[in-house]
Amino acid sequence: MLAEASGRYRAVGVDDADPAAVSVAVVWQHEPGSLQRYPNLSLVHSLGHGVEQILDDPGLPDVQVARLVDPGIPAAIARWTTRIVLSHTQREEEYREHQAAGRWRPMRRRYPESVRVGVLGLGEVGRAVAGMARGVMHPVAGWRATDEPVPGVHVLTGRDGLRDLFETSSVVINTLPSTPDTRHLVDRELLAALPDGAWFVNVGRGDVVSESVLLAALDDGLPALAHLDVFEEEPLPADSELWSHPNVRITPHVSGPTSTRTALPPLVENIHRVLDGLEPNHVVDRARGY
Amino acid sequence: MLAEASGRYRAVGVDDADPAAVSVAVVWQHEPGSLQRYPNLSLVHSLGHGVEQILDDPGLPDVQVARLVDPGIPAAIARWTTRIVLSHTQREEEYREHQAAGRWRPMRRRYPESVRVGVLGLGEVGRAVAGMARGVMHPVAGWRATDEPVPGVHVLTGRDGLRDLFETSSVVINTLPSTPDTRHLVDRELLAALPDGAWFVNVGRGDVVSESVLLAALDDGLPALAHLDVFEEEPLPADSELWSHPNVRITPHVSGPTSTRTALPPLVENIHRVLDGLEPNHVVDRARGY
Repeated sequence: MLAEASGRYRAVGVDDADPAAVSVAVVWQHEPGSLQRYPNLSLVHSLGHGVEQILDDPGLPDVQVARLVDPGIPAAIARWTTRIVLSHTQREEEYREHQAAGRWRPMRRRYPESVRVGVLGLGEVGRAVAGMARGVMHPVAGWRATDEPVPGVHVLTGRDGLRDLFETSSVVINTLPSTPDTRHLVDRELLAALPDGAWFVNVGRGDVVSESVLLAALDDGLPALAHLDVFEEEPLPADSELWSHPNVRITPHVSGPTSTRTALPPLVENIHRVLDGLEPNHVVDRARGY
Repeated sequence: MLAEASGRYRAVGVDDADPAAVSVAVVWQHEPGSLQRYPNLSLVHSLGHGVEQILDDPGLPDVQVARLVDPGIPAAIARWTTRIVLSHTQREEEYREHQAAGRWRPMRRRYPESVRVGVLGLGEVGRAVAGMARGVMHPVAGWRATDEPVPGVHVLTGRDGLRDLFETSSVVINTLPSTPDTRHLVDRELLAALPDGAWFVNVGRGDVVSESVLLAALDDGLPALAHLDVFEEEPLPADSELWSHPNVRITPHVSGPTSTRTALPPLVENIHRVLDGLEPNHVVDRARGY
């Protein structure tokens, strides 16, 4: 929290703040309703890219919300998805099975040029993911709300574009945030339209696909493998069937960690903007949800 | 084989060739001694980067040997090792174990900037491996016979340099060919010098490390994991203990496959050079072994 005392501002922990002196709250997974304690708040600043947890707080004061655009996050997520794309092209999972069976069997090579990567969402993260996939020689399609072009990416829009992306991509990577428009966007029909052997990767938000729909689709063989770093409920509940599904790889929301090294400079800049009476960067449109 | 008839040259299969008409033999895993059938041979051309199998043939005629430098191979191997480097940094193996135990436990993040990659050999393959590791933000050290510089790579030489590389690299990647100088170069002392948790990757030639030495080192915990694509004997014998070692990942020599798409143009060019009376490219120095 940023609190004022004798005309000077300083960063304070939640328990040390005089509520009336707090003008900026920097939050991550705050307790719903807790921001009402600060009558003079002018900005709620997220410590991560996602703001759905802030916007879902029914007790959110009527002040601006800004999200952190940490330049390290898109790069880290792009390295994460690149590892998965390369694993697909290099048939790593099949070779693991062959080793377990003691089998020496070179398989037909996959050329990256023939393995299209489909990216859902072309914001900071989606563009970084697309750029690095192209860097390792994969053609890339991307889906977004508008048809604004992205260099080197075949941009698709609308429901038809979404279906086109699923039909033609061997690895589909979701980078979309959680908003009213993206909730359960990836449905059974889209997953069934994937080419044989295609993978689904989620590094955006878990509720872009319903877990039960995804499980049923996996049981039908498409996607052939799902790499999930985000979930409808986090931590993923111990009784979720995803944990033990043979065609699911689970990581605990670690693909794009906020790093003080890269996050602090833009956060400090944004706070200075507020103190200087300027509009902060990356203000959230509450209606759009991001 | 390239054979002459009525003043014109054509490519012919081994069984179709008039032995006296053959001037160039393009070979991969040929039968030792079989090249003596061709009295007018002027060049033996390897279909891959490695030529040790040609040079080991006691019946090799006294003609030039050229190796194929397929520009697709270094790029493919660099994508292969990049996937493994990213897997290390992203702690993929540990997260697989956590999933198997149903455990949601985000671990301390590894920054690529803090994970040094050490590359043995800085030929076409080693430089491509080093370049892509740098592209995903890793510092890179490289070891070679001479101290000829490579941009962006901390170049080490000699036995002291080799020890330095092992002591300071979290992922050591061998790209060295099989020569009298590289045979069993990676010994027990070097492996024991690796930092805790370090990985060893072999995409060069299997006999750079003795399999029994590597197994003993793995049992001592260093390297923590070995990704092996090449072996002293290939196919890897069914009774090798490597198959079932929990800290070994085996693939059947597929990291850098020769592709007709990228290999044919330089091969055809080299044959034209010979027919035109020019020195072929990439002639092997028999004494060095590559």
